Amino acid sequence: MEKQVIAEIKVVPLGTASTSVSHYVARCLDIAKQAKDVEHQLTAMGTILQGPLERVLELAQEMHQVPFTLGVKRVLTTINIDDRRDKPATMESKVSAVNKHVAH
Amino acid sequence: MEKQVIAEIKVVPLGTASTSVSHYVARCLDIAKQAKDVEHQLTAMGTILQGPLERVLELAQEMHQVPFTLGVKRVLTTINIDDRRDKPATMESKVSAVNKHVAH
Amino acid sequence: MEKQVIAEIKVVPLGTASTSVSHYVARCLDIAKQAKDVEHQLTAMGTILQGPLERVLELAQEMHQVPFTLGVKRVLTTINIDDRRDKPATMESKVSAVNKHVAH
Amino acid sequence: MEKQVIAEIKVVPLGTASTSVSHYVARCLDIAKQAKDVEHQLTAMGTILQGPLERVLELAQEMHQVPFTLGVKRVLTTINIDDRRDKPATMESKVSAVNKHVAH
Repeated sequence: MEKQVIAEIKVVPLGTASTSVSHYVARCLDIAKQAKDVEHQLTAMGTILQGPLERVLELAQEMHQVPFTLGVKRVLTTINIDDRRDKPATMESKVSAVNKHVAH
Repeated sequence: MEKQVIAEIKVVPLGTASTSVSHYVARCLDIAKQAKDVEHQLTAMGTILQGPLERVLELAQEMHQVPFTLGVKRVLTTINIDDRRDKPATMESKVSAVNKHVAH
Repeated sequence: MEKQVIAEIKVVPLGTASTSVSHYVARCLDIAKQAKDVEHQLTAMGTILQGPLERVLELAQEMHQVPFTLGVKRVLTTINIDDRRDKPATMESKVSAVNKHVAH
Repeated sequence: MEKQVIAEIKVVPLGTASTSVSHYVARCLDIAKQAKDVEHQLTAMGTILQGPLERVLELAQEMHQVPFTLGVKRVLTTINIDDRRDKPATMESKVSAVNKHVAH
């Protein structure tokens, strides 16, 4: 398996008249969904991707373009990459590693 | 209901010999779990909290202290706050608002 | 000297008709300027504060409120804290520590 | 002039024995310095780049690789992009736009 990273992408449009940005996020999520080689998870605070670093950055860049194609003139995008190369990590394994240590 | 924010907290210990930080995150998660007035969700990229702004910042500060109590000498903490005051928002409502717009 | 942290604060108003947010940032900067016990530096990507953790979080919370007092209905605020307790660190010492290692 | 973005890059190595990361940051800064088509500024909280989006992301990816080439096994990298397309923006113009609004 090719080395994978886990990354969180947040795309924020500025200068939209409305406080609601869910339709922009939905179009960004479409891009993640269409990428069959990359896992994704939508959370309340962003979209988490899991896949090869190059691909994740390609998708992040496509997601960043989304609001511009919908008429927005300024976009703030945050990409948080967690790249671990000493052992495989997935979105699930990271969460379960924490839960294993949690007091019951 | 008091006004609520949604926030993501990431606590990163530096100068630990190991690349694994899950046991630190688990102790941070304990703090979120013990706060009965704040909802929480653990993701692969952080802990999402939902509650009054003051409380969320209090908990974030407690979570930030965790690695120091375990001997760490430097901690990087990121707090991302989404504070919407025109209508109620929850972790669930934000995700479902996006999903409503996603192509099926 | 009380222990100090270095933190970066970004306050982003959503649902403003204009793409320009500099007047909101200016009011946030006023708060930093009035805090005589906290150092500040404005950069192109946020406001860096240096001071005791409690004070920095108090100021961050005040800065977060600014756009609401100006009529904004949704604000995204990011607080990045660098808290080093093995030796004193300042905004200047961090930059000069890097420059000392840079190839000339 | 080609469209430019302003972006902040933070590269954080995990599992280093030392709390000091300035020599890693210095090698990242070397990459920014060698890119003649991209402006850069080192701050206490990251490296700000200004240039075409594609180039900035290329450099961010190179900077992300730096700690791995120095033996680190896990790297957290954050890329914050501010992409404004209604009018030109530079690191300097953003700061001076804020200062113009600040109370004297």
